[in-house]
Amino acid sequence: MPSGRVYLDANATEPLRPEARAAVIAALDRLGNPSSIHGDGRAARRLLEDARESIAARFGAAPRDVIFTSGGTEANVLAIHGLAGSGPILRGATEHPAVIAAAGDGAVILPVDADGLIDLTELPARLAAIKPTLVCLMLANNETGTLQPIAEVAALCRAAGALLHVDAVQAAGRISVDLASLGADSLSISAHKLGGPTGAGALLLAPEAAARLVPLLVGGGQERGRRGGTPALSNIAGFAAAALAAQPETARALAGMRDAIEAAAIAAGGIVVGGGGPRLANPRLPNTTCIALAGVRAESQVIALDLAGFSVSAGAACSSGKVARSHVLEAMGLGTLAGEAIRVSLPWNATPDHVTAFAAAYRVMAQQMRRKAA
Amino acid sequence: MPSGRVYLDANATEPLRPEARAAVIAALDRLGNPSSIHGDGRAARRLLEDARESIAARFGAAPRDVIFTSGGTEANVLAIHGLAGSGPILRGATEHPAVIAAAGDGAVILPVDADGLIDLTELPARLAAIKPTLVCLMLANNETGTLQPIAEVAALCRAAGALLHVDAVQAAGRISVDLASLGADSLSISAHKLGGPTGAGALLLAPEAAARLVPLLVGGGQERGRRGGTPALSNIAGFAAAALAAQPETARALAGMRDAIEAAAIAAGGIVVGGGGPRLANPRLPNTTCIALAGVRAESQVIALDLAGFSVSAGAACSSGKVARSHVLEAMGLGTLAGEAIRVSLPWNATPDHVTAFAAAYRVMAQQMRRKAA
Repeated sequence: MPSGRVYLDANATEPLRPEARAAVIAALDRLGNPSSIHGDGRAARRLLEDARESIAARFGAAPRDVIFTSGGTEANVLAIHGLAGSGPILRGATEHPAVIAAAGDGAVILPVDADGLIDLTELPARLAAIKPTLVCLMLANNETGTLQPIAEVAALCRAAGALLHVDAVQAAGRISVDLASLGADSLSISAHKLGGPTGAGALLLAPEAAARLVPLLVGGGQERGRRGGTPALSNIAGFAAAALAAQPETARALAGMRDAIEAAAIAAGGIVVGGGGPRLANPRLPNTTCIALAGVRAESQVIALDLAGFSVSAGAACSSGKVARSHVLEAMGLGTLAGEAIRVSLPWNATPDHVTAFAAAYRVMAQQMRRKAA
Repeated sequence: MPSGRVYLDANATEPLRPEARAAVIAALDRLGNPSSIHGDGRAARRLLEDARESIAARFGAAPRDVIFTSGGTEANVLAIHGLAGSGPILRGATEHPAVIAAAGDGAVILPVDADGLIDLTELPARLAAIKPTLVCLMLANNETGTLQPIAEVAALCRAAGALLHVDAVQAAGRISVDLASLGADSLSISAHKLGGPTGAGALLLAPEAAARLVPLLVGGGQERGRRGGTPALSNIAGFAAAALAAQPETARALAGMRDAIEAAAIAAGGIVVGGGGPRLANPRLPNTTCIALAGVRAESQVIALDLAGFSVSAGAACSSGKVARSHVLEAMGLGTLAGEAIRVSLPWNATPDHVTAFAAAYRVMAQQMRRKAA
């Protein structure tokens, strides 16, 4: 059994990878502002540009079209602010709150089915009717791990003359993510969701989007005039190191542990959400599962598991300590179950011991809660 | 004589203080997202709120009205975006490029005199004529160190019904900066300009501004819904530690070293800018001086000093390696001298040895350059 707490909330933030930690500390000791022309500034700039090249190569963009931001939220807001122009926006129903807020109340919503997937067959008609300038669709959902068919959506968007922005924050490092192969126009990534530090992210642009982007933060001309402010050099160095360390090949090993958790949860009366019901067959992130326990509030489950030493979440870890009913699960038509599901997301350093311990704790929690509810 | 390079470009970025370095590293090892409700999340939140209380106490704001941002640029853009409403903006002529860009082409410009100061006596008439909703005036200029009479401006703005936003990025940690005593409505601060890491800053709000602020990045409800995105926890911890370590009392010691540099530069034919000419009497930052050498391009001076092992800058360190003529010095009416001035800004760890070495290097540089020019 593991000693100490067991952290199973990687989708809120991944544990810092040792490679990233070392890169952050090395960069902290690097004096100089990358915009300065003297020797200290040039050395800082080399560090910044090396990181940019790593991120570009890792996720299929040209280095000049990687814009470093403060994180995934800023990258998403920048994409929407910078690419939508005055035209209508079409967005998925289960997008991250940052995308929903930036797209605004005027955005048209693309519904999802019970597994959280959009309907590809009806997308062409929607695109033709709405004529959006920008479509926003996340690659992997943060609460369920559901993967949208981005490459197919990208082809349809291109045919309809719409740009496609993809929030790849939860996907990057866990499955293969490549802007060019996906055929999207922009991609947002966050460092701390792949084992880097908080406070860094990137917006990656395909050439047409790069030519069109209107900046959000204008400052002293940094990032080719597309994002002002002195770059967060140590975070960016840690971001690049984490991106190199976070390989989908190794993340795939998490799928077996997730499956073991799901089997144990189902045996204890839980219902797996967003994985295709009993089939568990839809394409999903390897590390994420969303498990409902009918009749038991998500918050009570999280608190009981927390007391038992396990960190999991109810929905996303965004609002300040409040547990609201998940808009993601509601969009999937879960009804009251939407307030009764927890998210278990395995970090890169999860072990089979953690899984065994969690399975036992879940069983105890489910028994106690149902006894209380009865 | 100091061995190795001598860094005299603190206004581009201060060297990281050891207290800040230790705090960053300790926070890097703190697992958890401050928005998560489990034990790991709550521990991360305590770290975040401790930092918020430190920053609030240090700069005279209520903790609830400290909004952490990615840096000074985002704080400035947030203030202007969030407070200007639809009314006209009045801004100083020598503001930072981020403020100039965010205020936009429609902003009315408040001119400055040869020392970089606005004219207090004509401000009431301007406020009455323009009726701005927001006035933006920096506390300390980044290129010259000139201090604007903010408390007096704040009183006039209040009387005229305008909010006052103060860019205090270069002032914080070097002179006393207190939102409440200044009487301003908002104040922006950057971590790396006071010895913290890059990638953190804050917007501090007085109550009326706090009630009015419209957010720029909306995300998962963080920072009381006023700034979305997972906070950059390690940077913020380093920011708070640096803010505690950066005390104006010790920064005052830099003034003697700056005076010695100015005396040496004047003896070698340099002209001190923005300090009241030969009087050198205007209120200025203790660490900053701007020195022109007539007939010698600023870039050539910076490169010659860089080769000699000294990091200084021509104007601000913002645009990517380009040396443009300074809009600050042009606004001060310097004419061609605006392209012939360098900025020397002493870091918190400057020593008299650095000053002696720089004075000698400046003398050599000035002689060689003038010989070439002649």
